[in-house]
Amino acid sequence: MPRPLLILVLLVTHVAHAGDPAVQAAREWRKTQGTSILEEFVEYLALPNVAADLPAIEKNAAYMAVELEKRGVQVEIWQHEAVTPVVYGRLDAPGATRTLGFYLHYDGQPVDPTQWSSSPWTPTLYDGSIEDGARRISFPAANESIDSDWRIYARSAGDDKAPFTAILAALDALQHAGVTRTSNLVFFFEGEEEAGSVHLGDYMRQHRKQLKVDGWLIMDGPVHQSRRPQLVFGVRGYTGMDITVYGATRYLHSGHYGNWAPNPAQMLAQLLASMKNSNGDILVSGYFDSVNPLGDPEREALGRLPDTDADLRRELGLQQTEGSGASLAERLLLPSLNIRGMESARVGSAARNIIPVRAEASLDMRLVAGNNPSDMMALVEAHIREQGFHIVRVEPNNATRLKHPKIAKVIRQHGYPAARTPLDSEFARQVISATRRVTGEELVILPAAGGSLPLYLFNDILKAPVIMVPIANHDDNQHAPDENLRLANLWYGIDLLAGLFTMQE
Amino acid sequence: MPRPLLILVLLVTHVAHAGDPAVQAAREWRKTQGTSILEEFVEYLALPNVAADLPAIEKNAAYMAVELEKRGVQVEIWQHEAVTPVVYGRLDAPGATRTLGFYLHYDGQPVDPTQWSSSPWTPTLYDGSIEDGARRISFPAANESIDSDWRIYARSAGDDKAPFTAILAALDALQHAGVTRTSNLVFFFEGEEEAGSVHLGDYMRQHRKQLKVDGWLIMDGPVHQSRRPQLVFGVRGYTGMDITVYGATRYLHSGHYGNWAPNPAQMLAQLLASMKNSNGDILVSGYFDSVNPLGDPEREALGRLPDTDADLRRELGLQQTEGSGASLAERLLLPSLNIRGMESARVGSAARNIIPVRAEASLDMRLVAGNNPSDMMALVEAHIREQGFHIVRVEPNNATRLKHPKIAKVIRQHGYPAARTPLDSEFARQVISATRRVTGEELVILPAAGGSLPLYLFNDILKAPVIMVPIANHDDNQHAPDENLRLANLWYGIDLLAGLFTMQE
Repeated sequence: MPRPLLILVLLVTHVAHAGDPAVQAAREWRKTQGTSILEEFVEYLALPNVAADLPAIEKNAAYMAVELEKRGVQVEIWQHEAVTPVVYGRLDAPGATRTLGFYLHYDGQPVDPTQWSSSPWTPTLYDGSIEDGARRISFPAANESIDSDWRIYARSAGDDKAPFTAILAALDALQHAGVTRTSNLVFFFEGEEEAGSVHLGDYMRQHRKQLKVDGWLIMDGPVHQSRRPQLVFGVRGYTGMDITVYGATRYLHSGHYGNWAPNPAQMLAQLLASMKNSNGDILVSGYFDSVNPLGDPEREALGRLPDTDADLRRELGLQQTEGSGASLAERLLLPSLNIRGMESARVGSAARNIIPVRAEASLDMRLVAGNNPSDMMALVEAHIREQGFHIVRVEPNNATRLKHPKIAKVIRQHGYPAARTPLDSEFARQVISATRRVTGEELVILPAAGGSLPLYLFNDILKAPVIMVPIANHDDNQHAPDENLRLANLWYGIDLLAGLFTMQE
Repeated sequence: MPRPLLILVLLVTHVAHAGDPAVQAAREWRKTQGTSILEEFVEYLALPNVAADLPAIEKNAAYMAVELEKRGVQVEIWQHEAVTPVVYGRLDAPGATRTLGFYLHYDGQPVDPTQWSSSPWTPTLYDGSIEDGARRISFPAANESIDSDWRIYARSAGDDKAPFTAILAALDALQHAGVTRTSNLVFFFEGEEEAGSVHLGDYMRQHRKQLKVDGWLIMDGPVHQSRRPQLVFGVRGYTGMDITVYGATRYLHSGHYGNWAPNPAQMLAQLLASMKNSNGDILVSGYFDSVNPLGDPEREALGRLPDTDADLRRELGLQQTEGSGASLAERLLLPSLNIRGMESARVGSAARNIIPVRAEASLDMRLVAGNNPSDMMALVEAHIREQGFHIVRVEPNNATRLKHPKIAKVIRQHGYPAARTPLDSEFARQVISATRRVTGEELVILPAAGGSLPLYLFNDILKAPVIMVPIANHDDNQHAPDENLRLANLWYGIDLLAGLFTMQE
């Protein structure tokens, strides 16, 4: 009977700081009310929520408004014309001087139902992970015991509806136990994150005053792959460029012109090779100059991260990694320069004996705190010029071609900067401390994630720090078929929110 | 009236050595019999001749046999089972001690009739080049004057049926004028050159004795782009390889793993960049060691070639060329190493933010006299190993990946060596001299062409030297829609063959 044993382990883990009244209240509540919490979650997950389906999205917003109002939250639905609405809520605490903002998104990725084991918007319970051979089971009746290793399968179960249900349950738990919140709460729930958050900045600019808080908690993404709870204090920014290098104006026979007419694939290879040494170190001059150096707390946090590099290397078939043995976590705190695609004529059986007319590469650049997207692109362009290329923005005409030996068309992509909240800031200190009340030493503190999100908007427009407080399991198949949430992660979310709602100054 | 003027120019050019009885006989013949020569050419061109269409090919062979037999040639049709036949002919000359072999191919490239101005196997006459706005005209009646700037449009008009019609006309002309041939003639006409000459070697091996000649004249390809007649004394050999470089076993998110997990596009760029310097000089160790040095006559011939490089550069939009300013003709006398295709993931709007799992390049190598294909590939592989790559021949498994930091799968293509006949050899001297009787100083002597043909088979199996004696116009659209032959080039072919049939020892 392995399952009861697992529950036991989780209980031991989570019991660490159970002496705290808020955390105790949350645990008591989900133990006695687990079945109805699941019922609420299922009701919410059953609402289709692809951002492009505006009527469906509006039903989600209306549902959320009703549920928040039941808990005494003052709710507004903001909706710019023909755009997915924002669900805004405010719940003050008597005498509180601090206001915390909670962000989540209630839209989900589009689905291909044929790829799913059950219908994406018919939440379905399994006694574990489908990939591990779990069986479908019935939802428990009231007072039946609930195994926290069970999983609910539905679109957005992990990304990003679980935090909403956890917020409701945490409010209920504190209310029921009579535990007082220590902060005013602002809720800011977006409906088009999976469609690119196109209007997020507009909503922020128009509602600056209502969104004025002391710090934002971004409830999105998964916890650490070791299953340990995780706080993430930054994300990388993003930019990129498409580079096209030119040969002759028409395909040339490689026998009749080979090694006389310049080969653009060769020129592009030389250009790309010049950008890094054989260790993968970026050679673009000044590329690291604007990086905000890490503080001691960040260095210390890095040293305490679980070391999963060797496992990852084995899993990915990598005998070595870039960066002279630096850890993955260290590498993610530096700006990157990555060839995401490269193409010139055709390869394999489609190849012909020609000199290609052009060679293209697409680069993406992940930016860290301190890096400005257009400055970073300018550095790469300066490097391209140093390699003897004349940079153009449109296809070169014959006059341009005859004037310059090497021509690169560079098309910049849109970009945005990184966001990072220093670990020794007041807000970070408070959030870490509140989370530890729930997790103890289990907590993984990540100075910044490798991926990119436009969290800089919270810094730039709303002038407040951001910290990501994920609750979903790392193997929740987010964006993919069979998305799911492990119940242990929903329970953790409730505990965590109870802790955050009562966090000390 | 520009057209008569043009005829005049051509007559002046070709009259240079009209004192020679054979050349005089050819000119007289085509002047009086031009209409019937065209009729014969049209009849032959009207026969569809794609190698894959065996019944059609057999009709071509039968037609050729009948026409040759009319001229007293002893003809055999060789046909291995279900393979395109070879038309073989022999015509001895009384007392001759030398035997000349004439090779041509009677099959043509497949067609897309929708791309043609007229049906590919309905020979059609135009008063010039269609690209220059020429008009379609009727074929001339007997005794009507014929403009040598007219063009016949049909598949294989230039590549490679014109030489056959020229051979027939030259035999007729000499016969009519009572001029004696000085060599025995062997005709060896192939029906699957455009399909890769797959059985050419087999036919040679099986008929070595009948194919024993003192030298082969390869009647294929175009004359110089200046329109000057041309002899070509060699072709390059060919080989190549496909290289695949590996990253992780699955696509990785460029934010979560970028600049930690090695990028195969970056590794491939570095490998390819290492093969050449920025001038395009090949850096593979030993790549030029086996090249047979050029003799003085070859150097002299190079110096006398028309210089078309500047025009070509302008036409192709090239501000500079590889090889530190060396001429195209010089570069074609060296082995080449060309990236004919390169690919890793996707570019442009199809690009995604990933680290690619693999990067591929396809290389072709043109070989010159002295280069052995597998030795040359071994040199490139040694270079790849020097860059730290472990070479595999199949997809690497995980154990292999975990053992080697850099892995390249190298798949060698088939290859064959170059063929070159020294300009100071007896055969070369005789052919140059015979051709000059027709062309005078107009003759362009090319030590070797840049393209590749398996002419080494004539050297290796038949143990005889080869010289290419092209007659078609350079702008004959060979392999393409609207293939054509300029009549001046058919006339030149008849003159040339009359000269070769009567060439001095």
